[in-house]
Amino acid sequence: LGATRNLRRALSSLRSPTELDVQHFASIVGDGNVLTSPTDLEPYNTDWMRKYVGNSKLALRPGSTAEVSRVLAHCHAERIGVVPQGGNTGLVGGSVPVADEVVLSLGRMDRVLSVDEDSGHLVCEAGCVLEALQAHVAARGHTMPLDLGAKGSCQIGGNIATNAGGLRFLRYGSLHGSVLGLEAVLADGTVLDGLTALRKNNTGYDVKQLFIGSEGTLGVVTACALALPRAPSSVHLALLGADSYAALLRTFGVARRRLAEVLSAAEFLDRASLELACEKLDGVRDPLPGRPCAQYMLVEVSGSDAGHDEAKLSAFVDEAMESGDVVDGTIAQDGAQSAALWRLREGITEALGRTGRVYKYDVSLPLAQLYDLVEETRARMAPHGALVSGFGHLGDGNLHLNVCTPGAFDADAAVAAAIEPWVFEYIAERRGSISAEHGVGVMKPHVLHLSKRPPVIGVMHALKRLLDPHGILNPGKVLPPPPEDERPWRSAS
Amino acid sequence: LGATRNLRRALSSLRSPTELDVQHFASIVGDGNVLTSPTDLEPYNTDWMRKYVGNSKLALRPGSTAEVSRVLAHCHAERIGVVPQGGNTGLVGGSVPVADEVVLSLGRMDRVLSVDEDSGHLVCEAGCVLEALQAHVAARGHTMPLDLGAKGSCQIGGNIATNAGGLRFLRYGSLHGSVLGLEAVLADGTVLDGLTALRKNNTGYDVKQLFIGSEGTLGVVTACALALPRAPSSVHLALLGADSYAALLRTFGVARRRLAEVLSAAEFLDRASLELACEKLDGVRDPLPGRPCAQYMLVEVSGSDAGHDEAKLSAFVDEAMESGDVVDGTIAQDGAQSAALWRLREGITEALGRTGRVYKYDVSLPLAQLYDLVEETRARMAPHGALVSGFGHLGDGNLHLNVCTPGAFDADAAVAAAIEPWVFEYIAERRGSISAEHGVGVMKPHVLHLSKRPPVIGVMHALKRLLDPHGILNPGKVLPPPPEDERPWRSAS
Repeated sequence: LGATRNLRRALSSLRSPTELDVQHFASIVGDGNVLTSPTDLEPYNTDWMRKYVGNSKLALRPGSTAEVSRVLAHCHAERIGVVPQGGNTGLVGGSVPVADEVVLSLGRMDRVLSVDEDSGHLVCEAGCVLEALQAHVAARGHTMPLDLGAKGSCQIGGNIATNAGGLRFLRYGSLHGSVLGLEAVLADGTVLDGLTALRKNNTGYDVKQLFIGSEGTLGVVTACALALPRAPSSVHLALLGADSYAALLRTFGVARRRLAEVLSAAEFLDRASLELACEKLDGVRDPLPGRPCAQYMLVEVSGSDAGHDEAKLSAFVDEAMESGDVVDGTIAQDGAQSAALWRLREGITEALGRTGRVYKYDVSLPLAQLYDLVEETRARMAPHGALVSGFGHLGDGNLHLNVCTPGAFDADAAVAAAIEPWVFEYIAERRGSISAEHGVGVMKPHVLHLSKRPPVIGVMHALKRLLDPHGILNPGKVLPPPPEDERPWRSAS
Repeated sequence: LGATRNLRRALSSLRSPTELDVQHFASIVGDGNVLTSPTDLEPYNTDWMRKYVGNSKLALRPGSTAEVSRVLAHCHAERIGVVPQGGNTGLVGGSVPVADEVVLSLGRMDRVLSVDEDSGHLVCEAGCVLEALQAHVAARGHTMPLDLGAKGSCQIGGNIATNAGGLRFLRYGSLHGSVLGLEAVLADGTVLDGLTALRKNNTGYDVKQLFIGSEGTLGVVTACALALPRAPSSVHLALLGADSYAALLRTFGVARRRLAEVLSAAEFLDRASLELACEKLDGVRDPLPGRPCAQYMLVEVSGSDAGHDEAKLSAFVDEAMESGDVVDGTIAQDGAQSAALWRLREGITEALGRTGRVYKYDVSLPLAQLYDLVEETRARMAPHGALVSGFGHLGDGNLHLNVCTPGAFDADAAVAAAIEPWVFEYIAERRGSISAEHGVGVMKPHVLHLSKRPPVIGVMHALKRLLDPHGILNPGKVLPPPPEDERPWRSAS
């Protein structure tokens, strides 16, 4: 209900595009890049989970930053809503229209502008697909600082707009550090050209940071410069089992100390997740069949010397097993075994989807308390016959909590009521995050206040009003309804 | 002249604090934390180079965020200028008053609030001295993600406000990535509490990023949460000599490939810098006396296994020497030798200061062109008898260019005219940065337009007006005079 009110408010000052607007847009992007038929529009209106469906009558495929600028200037002047769209692989409905906004698809802008092998950086347009960029820079001895399951479809502009996390976050950190420069277009069509690839540039406010993670509500990312790490020449992977989350956490501590600079992933999954993956996915089997464990951890090391990396990994595994915290484990002996272990971890979402209706929560909590939430949820949902699975990025304190019910969504009102808002309040009480990496989109503006204090949300509203005064960019996303007060964070003065 | 006009404008709407204000401030921070005598005020009014001298009659030493908030709320309501001050170690005059603003010194707020050894993070107040934090976290197996020469005096709040770079930037990246959470107070006294230590938190705009590098002009940093890397157990250092910058650059490429994850510093200095350090500093000698080289590179590796690190360093040095690019070199055999090599690199600034008047430029340029600027400057300054030295953070593309003249400042008008604005325009033409890590302060607002495009500067002005509408925070710093237009970045629409 709150969500509906928020959308109505966000859309109230916007109008639908007319035939005249379509002609104007065609004069900018060319007839062939104006899509108006329902069939053509279907993939632009629907998110990949088919959970969010918009009603746009118009998608534009600009070929340059200048075209993006002209499209936005018109929408700004005419109060027409715009949804910037990359690969449309988001999980919170942020990239599809909520009504009949114009979809601005960046996919045609997919040129790599340069790769600098001396200092290690890439300059490219926003529509480049992540996997294509990975291949491009790998051929030049480098690697992308991020990797995620959607890499075959997601675009770097969307990755930046949503501050994507993923599997390499532990090693290479956040896009707030990796993005060296950015070109973005404001709602009114102004091009902010900050497309330098300098590592250091302390010349005033780092304006580009505003666009990283603002999900297309403050501007449209059109190009970027990214820092590239050297590609590791060696990668090794181990799966370890433990009898408790506490033991797993101690083992992660040993990994941080023993593996230090070569640690490149520390993922975890619980027994329920492993059993689900083994049951539902073809060809996935329990890699440690002799000894069922309560918790599992995937530890990846990558570095520049295979012998060194193997020695460190062995020393780590030895220490972890001698301590008694790790009770079983295996080290992948080749690429096929590595791929099988990753398939187990990455397949959980698919296995859940084949099991029933899934309530997904993407949560950050202090590491020591991370798994408590899974156990409390499991106890809470037991009367409802729901299956609760917990897995995620241990090294980042990022839990993916899933509650899976066999019934249809509508029949599960009791289940839904048992989870929400309890789960969000639980997270808020521990100052966790109600969205670790998936973002806010159209799914979570109503619970944003559980992770951000009111004055911070007040500043967010003020930034939105400043940079997009007519609210044309991705209306209804990220921001909750604004407070009445003009400058809501202001204290009495 | 432009600078004077900018200061006059920035100060024009502000008033001086009166005796009544002083009494009010004393009721907030306590009598003992109100400084009014010229002797007490002298260190707060003067930067450490003694180049910038303010005329403040009042310094306040708040003990808590609540006190900072109340002080700022009063200054906001009463239009009194405020200069937030940490360790006062900046190089661009950003932390001393330009007239009689109130100095708000954060030094009493120096509590470490927590260290989490599981996930590796620190939460502390803004006034903590960097070196004290380093000692505190080192005792817990971790290291600070930044290190710089001023570590004995600089405070973490100032480091964040100025987005300090330093010696570990190559390994651990920018504070935009390392700062996990921030507490900051806006000009009107509103406390923005974003002091969570979560690695991932994609809940809307990353508002904290605005305060990183804004040099106290948008808010006052009062506390922070920082990601901590594990402390390396082994550190090794080599000094290598090459006959050209091109050879040095190729050697850096070999270092990135061979040393990869253990590379922790790649600094360079030219022959002029080395000779100056050897001549002017007690106990500093040429470490490679047998073979004078045009260029030198310090390469540091640090990791979790001394044997592995030594093997990688040796393999790197072997490859670099076999290629012919490195013509001489030495690997430090113990801590004393390491310290001597670092003393050579870090002492250059001091050696320059003992030689004459120094014009310092802190520059980012594309790596391939970095040293061209030194050579062109040297050719340009030769008729003036000036000594030109180039050194810096090779791995970050950050050159410290120094032009040293024997004469007094006033006598050097011809020298000054030969350097500026030429040097800034040279950088602008190559899309470099006129301030890689030192910031803008009061020194460089007039040349900001050479590194930032007009629309980006327009957004900076708009952000300043939004968050500090009366302009009380660090007046005259960072921003050039605003354009006439109300929303200067806006295109016609």
